[in-house]
Amino acid sequence: MTLQAIKYSSGRLEILDQLLLPHQSTYIPVSGVEDGWKAIHSMQVRGAPAIAIVGSLSLAVELLTATFDDKSILRQEVEGKLNYLCSARPTAVNMKIAAEELTLETNRLCSDDSVPNAEDMKKRLVAKIEEMLEKDISDNKAIGDYGAKAMLSSAGGSPSSKLRVLTHCNTGSLATAGYGTALGVIRSLFALGKLEHAYCTETRPYNQGARLTAYELVHEKIPSTMVCDSAVSALMKSKTVSGVVVGADRIAANGDTANKIGTYQIAVLAKYHGVPFYVAAPLTSIDLDTANGDRIVIEERPAVEMTHVGGKQVAASGINCWNPAFDVTPADLITAIITEHGAFSPAELAAKIANLTEASV
Amino acid sequence: MTLQAIKYSSGRLEILDQLLLPHQSTYIPVSGVEDGWKAIHSMQVRGAPAIAIVGSLSLAVELLTATFDDKSILRQEVEGKLNYLCSARPTAVNMKIAAEELTLETNRLCSDDSVPNAEDMKKRLVAKIEEMLEKDISDNKAIGDYGAKAMLSSAGGSPSSKLRVLTHCNTGSLATAGYGTALGVIRSLFALGKLEHAYCTETRPYNQGARLTAYELVHEKIPSTMVCDSAVSALMKSKTVSGVVVGADRIAANGDTANKIGTYQIAVLAKYHGVPFYVAAPLTSIDLDTANGDRIVIEERPAVEMTHVGGKQVAASGINCWNPAFDVTPADLITAIITEHGAFSPAELAAKIANLTEASV
Repeated sequence: MTLQAIKYSSGRLEILDQLLLPHQSTYIPVSGVEDGWKAIHSMQVRGAPAIAIVGSLSLAVELLTATFDDKSILRQEVEGKLNYLCSARPTAVNMKIAAEELTLETNRLCSDDSVPNAEDMKKRLVAKIEEMLEKDISDNKAIGDYGAKAMLSSAGGSPSSKLRVLTHCNTGSLATAGYGTALGVIRSLFALGKLEHAYCTETRPYNQGARLTAYELVHEKIPSTMVCDSAVSALMKSKTVSGVVVGADRIAANGDTANKIGTYQIAVLAKYHGVPFYVAAPLTSIDLDTANGDRIVIEERPAVEMTHVGGKQVAASGINCWNPAFDVTPADLITAIITEHGAFSPAELAAKIANLTEASV
Repeated sequence: MTLQAIKYSSGRLEILDQLLLPHQSTYIPVSGVEDGWKAIHSMQVRGAPAIAIVGSLSLAVELLTATFDDKSILRQEVEGKLNYLCSARPTAVNMKIAAEELTLETNRLCSDDSVPNAEDMKKRLVAKIEEMLEKDISDNKAIGDYGAKAMLSSAGGSPSSKLRVLTHCNTGSLATAGYGTALGVIRSLFALGKLEHAYCTETRPYNQGARLTAYELVHEKIPSTMVCDSAVSALMKSKTVSGVVVGADRIAANGDTANKIGTYQIAVLAKYHGVPFYVAAPLTSIDLDTANGDRIVIEERPAVEMTHVGGKQVAASGINCWNPAFDVTPADLITAIITEHGAFSPAELAAKIANLTEASV
């Protein structure tokens, strides 16, 4: 069964404690905003989309356990709690975006005379939050299906042939509301019976591949193998890799893509070995206001992430470290960008997105 | 001062305990063959050339503390002790080669009537061993100087310009009798005042870069920075890397080079970014009987090297791992191979080596 990092049914929320992974799989209850704040702050839940969903759902759970006499009191409560949730990890922009969306909706419902009372308004707010959860998952599934289709089509081969796919970092159930983006593509291929083997990198220095992606692959019984970040070229040469699929932190208008450090060199290696290279991400990751990758500022992380593993020193004392969290893959190394609306070549990305936005206005 | 992993003066030997690196720099005395065997067996000394030198020097120390009545008794003693040293790590081929060389010399001296007695024979054997130590270091220094010259010449630039050099794995004082091969090139550039900055990779999964190369660079106060194996492409793009220099485990006749896993992809990335890529190794690493890299069998190491760091589990339980110890860099990605007799392009390698061998016959 698909890994569920977030278990939600009306009024009840449990999340997989990511601090205990990969050693223990323990679900912790989140019975309200206070618990949600703690789970985000302590990094029991990580990954930008997952943070926003857990924060919002913790609000839904809390609202369902309380009663409100007045719509404006409810509005004040919701706004206060959303602000509080945003403070759990100030850099998690997705929680802020979700909070803005929910604040807008709260204000709208408050002034909407067709919403008769606080209880009705509460139900509508909870429904809105549940909708956000469902949309994230259904968008991920659409990405998975479009990605599987694109990879199968570029690989050609006989109808019975299966793919061998490499991914980097973690873009699965643990980083999203469920299913995943790049790992969702691998899930879709597996569900179609079209995956021969998945490969994941360790993804130094934070080991998201070794800790999280490997955990998801083992959990889902997907035939899979982990390689060191240094073994990607050897892998492409000695095993037949059909394609690479990775996620994105931010995609510029020209298709240049910022993603976890190491993505850029996998793209170069894929080009050298003639392996197609895909980026899988929701439309919200595409930033048309950023013309190209040169404009994307790369966060540099502390040396301790490289010099220590699990609190244990692994590098010589006194060595300087350069630890960029991300790198930028130039658009010309990307075969296609897979979104919930289809797979687009980097060159056609901006026009396609503009069309989609226009159509939805 | 240059890091001395092996400290030797006539009759006295101390080695840096590599098991305690990078946390502690402790020298342990090696007062004879028994100590030598233990140091090799327990991996207090590592690296094929270093093992051979420490084993042979432990014999020299032991011989100098004893007296022998008869040349043939001395011969028996030496042969027995050399066999014993070879058993410390059966896969360490360099100790076997050194033992063969010393056995030949022992037999020659034993039957040479111009060597009057056992004490004289002992002195000559000790001198032969001390010569092996000196030759390894002087060969390394020659490699360093030829390498520095080749890199400076390919980089062009003004006479005052300095290089920014990347290396992979450990090829320094800790792996050789002293100075090092690829790291020796960096040492030579630094000594010439021509090194702006050295970069080393972590070199997963065994972290030779983080533990050993970083230790040597810090010790020598060489301006240097460590990067993750995944950050090489980003490094080449955002910093100006003048050249890459790596060691070799085995070089085929056509120049294809087997070296630590990760070397091949650094060569691909260097090609993509227009960065010259050098291999530094003594002539003994060149195997003219192997036509090309396809004939080189790559050792696959256990998964535990990837899933655990310092005894601590870092990867999800149950994940398969592919852990090749080496990969093969095709000759067409190599700018030049630097030996103690000069820098040769892969295409001219076989002819040059044949000439050198002929000249020395």
